[in-house]
Amino acid sequence: MRQKLLFKNCTILAGAGETEYAPVENGYLGVEGDTIAYIGREKPEGYETEKDMRGALLCPGLINAHTHAAMTLLRGLGSGLPLDRWLHEAIFPVEDRLTDEDIYAGNALAQMEMLSSGTTSYSDMYDKPMTAVELCAQSGMKINLCRPILSFDPSERAKDSWRVQGTLALFDGYHMAQNGRVRVDFSIHAEYTNHESLVREYAELGAERGARMHLHLSETYKEHEECKARHNKTPAQWFYDLGVFELPTAAAHCVAVEDADIKLMKACNVSAIHNPSSNMKLGSGFAPILKMHEMGVNVALGTDGTASNDNLNMIEEMHLAALIHNGILRDPTAMPPARVLDMATRNGARLQGRADTGVLAVGKKADIIAVSTQAPHMRPLLSQLPALVYSAQGSDVMMTMVDGSILYENGEFKTIDAERVYHDVAASVKRLYNL
Amino acid sequence: MRQKLLFKNCTILAGAGETEYAPVENGYLGVEGDTIAYIGREKPEGYETEKDMRGALLCPGLINAHTHAAMTLLRGLGSGLPLDRWLHEAIFPVEDRLTDEDIYAGNALAQMEMLSSGTTSYSDMYDKPMTAVELCAQSGMKINLCRPILSFDPSERAKDSWRVQGTLALFDGYHMAQNGRVRVDFSIHAEYTNHESLVREYAELGAERGARMHLHLSETYKEHEECKARHNKTPAQWFYDLGVFELPTAAAHCVAVEDADIKLMKACNVSAIHNPSSNMKLGSGFAPILKMHEMGVNVALGTDGTASNDNLNMIEEMHLAALIHNGILRDPTAMPPARVLDMATRNGARLQGRADTGVLAVGKKADIIAVSTQAPHMRPLLSQLPALVYSAQGSDVMMTMVDGSILYENGEFKTIDAERVYHDVAASVKRLYNL
Repeated sequence: MRQKLLFKNCTILAGAGETEYAPVENGYLGVEGDTIAYIGREKPEGYETEKDMRGALLCPGLINAHTHAAMTLLRGLGSGLPLDRWLHEAIFPVEDRLTDEDIYAGNALAQMEMLSSGTTSYSDMYDKPMTAVELCAQSGMKINLCRPILSFDPSERAKDSWRVQGTLALFDGYHMAQNGRVRVDFSIHAEYTNHESLVREYAELGAERGARMHLHLSETYKEHEECKARHNKTPAQWFYDLGVFELPTAAAHCVAVEDADIKLMKACNVSAIHNPSSNMKLGSGFAPILKMHEMGVNVALGTDGTASNDNLNMIEEMHLAALIHNGILRDPTAMPPARVLDMATRNGARLQGRADTGVLAVGKKADIIAVSTQAPHMRPLLSQLPALVYSAQGSDVMMTMVDGSILYENGEFKTIDAERVYHDVAASVKRLYNL
Repeated sequence: MRQKLLFKNCTILAGAGETEYAPVENGYLGVEGDTIAYIGREKPEGYETEKDMRGALLCPGLINAHTHAAMTLLRGLGSGLPLDRWLHEAIFPVEDRLTDEDIYAGNALAQMEMLSSGTTSYSDMYDKPMTAVELCAQSGMKINLCRPILSFDPSERAKDSWRVQGTLALFDGYHMAQNGRVRVDFSIHAEYTNHESLVREYAELGAERGARMHLHLSETYKEHEECKARHNKTPAQWFYDLGVFELPTAAAHCVAVEDADIKLMKACNVSAIHNPSSNMKLGSGFAPILKMHEMGVNVALGTDGTASNDNLNMIEEMHLAALIHNGILRDPTAMPPARVLDMATRNGARLQGRADTGVLAVGKKADIIAVSTQAPHMRPLLSQLPALVYSAQGSDVMMTMVDGSILYENGEFKTIDAERVYHDVAASVKRLYNL
């Protein structure tokens, strides 16, 4: 039986787009099954269940467009080390020891953090992806998951690569599973971790299947310049020449991209993912997000993994994205709050290939969060959008709904056994770090 | 009767300084009266009351070194406007209408926000300062308050200036009130809002009294360059030449300061206050905090007012300060977490002239916050200091103690009537904005 649920007495951040956010005050939002069926000021008929949301702002669920969720187990590890030492001394040795059980526990902890701070869908790049498939089946979150290709042997062919074959099996077995909540993307880790022949073959296999692509692009100036020295072209041009951009592509970081790269991204429908915390913490720099936006590139927002952030809080990431570009460009009008919310919602939906999410509108999936406006830092509530982007904290999220199901409400996880996850995380940490 | 209270089963972020933070795990912290009397692993004798703080990190209370607290009533106002229009169209017209009652309500709301996110002491610059004196007497917070001098008439003398005379009366009447919790500083708003003769006289009056000074310094490049055009010297040089730096001075913003200014600040014991959110949101830029630190200037941290932040959350401000300088300098080692915590605690204490605060150590005032490590985003807790600076949220603060008195705990304000404040804020907002 399809549920019919009516949210009442709330302000609804409906509509989409920079000039289109149209808060409906003292409004009603009706959910039928997994879909938004009504938004308006008049009370509609025929809803058997009503939910009083007084003091809440209903917003579209946030979409974390780039993370490595299982890295919660490495949260904060090696903070303050130079990048090479951070990777080789702090991160890689622990990652080498991660078992399936560790990754399941790390992913579950990550989903708890994301659900409790308003994220409904995320794009995840990591190994052992079946753990995420299983977890999402249980938890109800949406995921675009991928296992990245790294090919250090130039003679390796797709038919002999367990990573490539694993992606094909994963895609054929689980893409669009769980009523479309689980999607499998293709993924090339980065230019500097791959060889041309395998990348070309892999892209062809992805294009045949109509898959999407997720990769790291020009995260650092060093990587960008080394690629130019190696191939006499930028990473974006390298991917393009190998046919990778035949697939709808999500490119994480884009700190060092050049104008010609941005034009290529626009022409090939490549989305950029802004990861401001990670790019700053690791000393990478600032992606030219506003230039990309002005040149027509779709820009989404992500947290990256918790070893370089160190949280998965999209509300904090919005705040950062809203502030830093005004500072860099010395222009208080550079990043309007609506553009920031776009990045964290509908632009992420477009990147994930989920046209039915990212906005509160009739006919869209009921991926909805309720943000409390009752804490001191949300008062007075003079304008909803600036309050959400500049003042709100992750802890203000009081409810997170995905496809019409409430997965988190007032500190409680409805589909995840929090105590079990904490227990499993503690056991993994004890083993991984010899604590 | 002096209380004797023992916190047990907690980790204590004791010690001070970049290499000196020494977390005491599974420790005890004893408070006698308003003072920290014990920190250690062994349980001490003679404490009649014990408080189990399992799962908490005890940290020094955070010190917000620059704000305009009453501006909570203007939270988020005019977001996205250019600076001139923001001031003249959004901010000033509302400020002109603020009554004593409005400012009291705005300050009370600000204190609720600060206490609930771990701030124990703040430096506040605003008009109608008696409202803050009265409020702090009731709430128990620490404040260095000041009313800024603005002199637009070059013929104005100190004896005829109600602002100067008001400061003298305030200082003589209330400096060191409430057992030293309330302190009155002298304040010159900025170079561009003042005339030389009055500034010189005012500084002399302050120096005679042994007062401290709080001012805005080179907040924007425009203001800095206009000063040079007007006076053929920088704002720092202008203040120095007028005798202002004879007083121990706190200089907010310092975005556009030059190397010679920084040398002057160091020589004159001028502290800088970093306000990263505000400087970014308003498009001012990035203060050269690390250069100041390296050149020996004491650098504290502040939120500025909520119309340009838009919150008073020092934990979020620490996170920003920790990230942005790594990004600007493209160096992941630029801003170690301990330096960030220093800025938010002991450096602020030094700026406020409160040598007995800013650090958890025996003999210091019991200004203590308890930060919960139980939320998903704080797990696993691999290292306390990075967790506090990069992962923690304001909402993780579960207790705030000032001078041995618990003022906030688990959502409850012990000395402020929250419902009354919310009612008064709503009434002020209704009147101010014709809502």
